[in-house]
Amino acid sequence: MRILLVGAGGHVGGVARDAFEGRGHEVLAVSRTTDPAVNTSDPASIRALLEAVGIVDAIVVAAGSVPFKPVTELTREDYMSGFVSKTLGQLEFVVQGLDHVADGGSITVTTGVLARESVPTAAAAAMANGAVESFVLAAAPELPRGIRINAVSPNVLANSPHYHDAFAGMTPVTDSEVAMAFIRAVEGNVNGRVLAV
Amino acid sequence: MRILLVGAGGHVGGVARDAFEGRGHEVLAVSRTTDPAVNTSDPASIRALLEAVGIVDAIVVAAGSVPFKPVTELTREDYMSGFVSKTLGQLEFVVQGLDHVADGGSITVTTGVLARESVPTAAAAAMANGAVESFVLAAAPELPRGIRINAVSPNVLANSPHYHDAFAGMTPVTDSEVAMAFIRAVEGNVNGRVLAV
Repeated sequence: MRILLVGAGGHVGGVARDAFEGRGHEVLAVSRTTDPAVNTSDPASIRALLEAVGIVDAIVVAAGSVPFKPVTELTREDYMSGFVSKTLGQLEFVVQGLDHVADGGSITVTTGVLARESVPTAAAAAMANGAVESFVLAAAPELPRGIRINAVSPNVLANSPHYHDAFAGMTPVTDSEVAMAFIRAVEGNVNGRVLAV
Repeated sequence: MRILLVGAGGHVGGVARDAFEGRGHEVLAVSRTTDPAVNTSDPASIRALLEAVGIVDAIVVAAGSVPFKPVTELTREDYMSGFVSKTLGQLEFVVQGLDHVADGGSITVTTGVLARESVPTAAAAAMANGAVESFVLAAAPELPRGIRINAVSPNVLANSPHYHDAFAGMTPVTDSEVAMAFIRAVEGNVNGRVLAV
């Protein structure tokens, strides 16, 4: 398959890239610093990327960032920032991306355990991830031309050094488990699912 | 208790009002057309309301609207509109509202079954509701002074004429079931819960 992978510069994006390339797929891996580059908070940037890329069999997005602060310090601007980056930044690949996905293809977005489990300072992240996960289940039955949509929703990453203190007592997910979820989302027949790993 | 009820003009808000008044609470019921009025999409309007109201034992919000369209027709502006109205419009009562809730009080927001079940044209509604539900579970452990937060999340309303066709095969919820959930959220000790009815 020909796969557009957005967010290739992050740990999860890198895992997905290796997984897809290992399965023999053609991966168009983009980030803020590739050529073409993309800023997923800017719909015009996404439009330019999609026009440059043309038609793909799958779009996989592992991008977006959210402010982490205690809920008593989170501002309206923080929630808006997280929504624009993590939620709209991924949904835009449905709004604009559908026309660039081949019949029977797929869109895969990335969320995380914060949509369903609390950890300190993660209220905005929970909000942004929960928005994407509920969207996926609602959008799936309405997508045209047999196109599927799913979310890969990892726990804290075993092989990334970040955030482990905040996720005390939660079982980290290995790169291979994350990779399997992306492979299933793209090669399998699941639709409207949150693939929690 | 002294309860600020926002969204008193809607069906769910009316059910909550009757329930709280029936339990002997003092209900400050506001909507877009009361005095004081509130437009929950406008943080300055919420600020003015809270300053007029002072300190309450509970804030209950049953406000916010979201565009309903097939996912192939939903635009970035539609998602933003639903987020500002239904998600931020309720979260703002945490951002600003915490300082107006007495020690040991509570904040209750309103979501709906669309966060977890798909019906046609509801992808933006799912997104906005899912955002609020994940926020609630993440925010609850971080609220100060023993303040609790919960979401009441009803199915389609048995006693409201709207939307029944879209919810074919889903069991409508009666007013009394909705009322019980609001009473539990305000008078009970639940925290960080989505009270699905």
